Amino acid sequence: MAVYTEVPAETLASFLADYAVGEPVMAKGIAEGVSNSNYLVETAGDVGRQRFILTLYERRVDAESLPYVLALMEHLADAGLPVPRPVKDRAGDALRTLLGRPASLIAYLPGISVTSPTAGQCFAVGEALARLHCAARGFPGRRANPLGVRQWRRTLEALAGDLDGISPGLGSLAHSAFDVARQAFDRGLPAGTIHADLFPDNVLFLGDTVSGLIDFAFAADDLLAYDLAVAHAAWCFCPDGSVLDPARATALLSGYSSIRPLGDDELAALPHLCCAAALRFLLSRSEDWLAARTEAAGLVTHKDPRAFERRLQHYLAAVRG
Amino acid sequence: MAVYTEVPAETLASFLADYAVGEPVMAKGIAEGVSNSNYLVETAGDVGRQRFILTLYERRVDAESLPYVLALMEHLADAGLPVPRPVKDRAGDALRTLLGRPASLIAYLPGISVTSPTAGQCFAVGEALARLHCAARGFPGRRANPLGVRQWRRTLEALAGDLDGISPGLGSLAHSAFDVARQAFDRGLPAGTIHADLFPDNVLFLGDTVSGLIDFAFAADDLLAYDLAVAHAAWCFCPDGSVLDPARATALLSGYSSIRPLGDDELAALPHLCCAAALRFLLSRSEDWLAARTEAAGLVTHKDPRAFERRLQHYLAAVRG
Repeated sequence: MAVYTEVPAETLASFLADYAVGEPVMAKGIAEGVSNSNYLVETAGDVGRQRFILTLYERRVDAESLPYVLALMEHLADAGLPVPRPVKDRAGDALRTLLGRPASLIAYLPGISVTSPTAGQCFAVGEALARLHCAARGFPGRRANPLGVRQWRRTLEALAGDLDGISPGLGSLAHSAFDVARQAFDRGLPAGTIHADLFPDNVLFLGDTVSGLIDFAFAADDLLAYDLAVAHAAWCFCPDGSVLDPARATALLSGYSSIRPLGDDELAALPHLCCAAALRFLLSRSEDWLAARTEAAGLVTHKDPRAFERRLQHYLAAVRG
Repeated sequence: MAVYTEVPAETLASFLADYAVGEPVMAKGIAEGVSNSNYLVETAGDVGRQRFILTLYERRVDAESLPYVLALMEHLADAGLPVPRPVKDRAGDALRTLLGRPASLIAYLPGISVTSPTAGQCFAVGEALARLHCAARGFPGRRANPLGVRQWRRTLEALAGDLDGISPGLGSLAHSAFDVARQAFDRGLPAGTIHADLFPDNVLFLGDTVSGLIDFAFAADDLLAYDLAVAHAAWCFCPDGSVLDPARATALLSGYSSIRPLGDDELAALPHLCCAAALRFLLSRSEDWLAARTEAAGLVTHKDPRAFERRLQHYLAAVRG
């Protein structure tokens, strides 16, 4: 987590002059996002002080996806979800260019990301995710999931023998998981727009209330229950993936079901979709991990893929009974 | 610039409970400080919302200096300067421990650090520095300058031939500068408490008004005119040190003199003290640069020492007429 691009104060002031938000009175580079530079900006203008997140999209971001992502955020904010609203400049554009990078100004939402979620917070996240799925029904944007089931096969082939270098037996585990996971994507389960990355650092809380759902960079069309499976992998284990907390898992599923009850077919597929979710993050973390060995050490601390190896072992055992 | 220590939300809430500031409603790791981890924190309590900077002091910080630094900041805030006030916990302590590190909660000040200062901003910085020197007269704390003239000799000896590896002839230039610089420290010029590091990133502006003077980690007892010389080196050149802007230099000195007129002895010594200031940053940047060659590449981007080699060449030419 780092700020890759420094935005001089004079450049920021000139950029903000294209918006009806007043003059900047604060700009702090914040340590959030692995593919973006983010600034917390405060302005003073006719309507008083306002806060925003200014994001510059760096390497690894699919620039073509940005109009989709910003339109989705606006749609969800319009629907009353606690999703930060992209701000349009005087010409009506939410997607701009700053220092040669795609950039957007997004309304700030208060709240804090938790590290050790409580069961109450997991219930609230389940509710919020279900509300997101319902509110996104009317969203016209479409995006094939760039890190979905079709991509996993290619990534598995590309990584091939390298996985066992991370952890002995990991290659075989990942292939088993893929065979289990892909079955769930052929059953005609309910699909729609999903967040696809709803980890604790992408949710803001005020107490046990969800005050913000952020970072829609991976949002795409896919199975709704797969999004819930991602949240299960993200919220219900201890950080190293070795222990599942049944209270948090129950709360997450209850919270989701209280807003959007799962169908029997979704419930039956959930163990397979959890394997899919663990595989998806195992693969991306493994790619980052292996790339970090060869790259000059950069600013990003790569997360240990084995935290998802352990989750996957847990989920595979559950599928196999 | 990076956040070295991640403070989990639950740890932060427990830490803040020892203060009368309310509950946290925002915590953003901010990319400021090369030896600290900093968080911008907002709380909600009886007196409404308040903002603070939470600092965890990391490697390279002289922990024994922290009580001095915090007391100085409180003294200057009491005197009405725009210096962020350290907040005391319910037991009356401003210096705490968090995650094994010394830590302090400091009042937030609005404003933005400029990258290309205007002459008007240089005038305002000169005024603010002179006010700081005047307000610090009554401050009882004492601290020998850990990066003062005595230390430069030792650093020069330690770096020896390595300087020429950064830039050919740099060793000889640095020794010449030391001979010029040290003369200015034997003349009985006015001394007192100085900031010692008043670069643009340590000053916050709202327009042309100084709204914050921050980062007192290097504050110490030394010559007042040396502090002005540091500001001259910091504010009056283009970033790579190749061009001095006479308008900014004149404005800085005018602003300072409008509050605290310089004595004839100080004016006469100023060219020598500017050599001293350029040498001080040349040496510390060279140490960082050389260390970075041998260390595993870390999170900190080291600044090019040659930006101060060029300043030093300029100042030496001025001394030699």
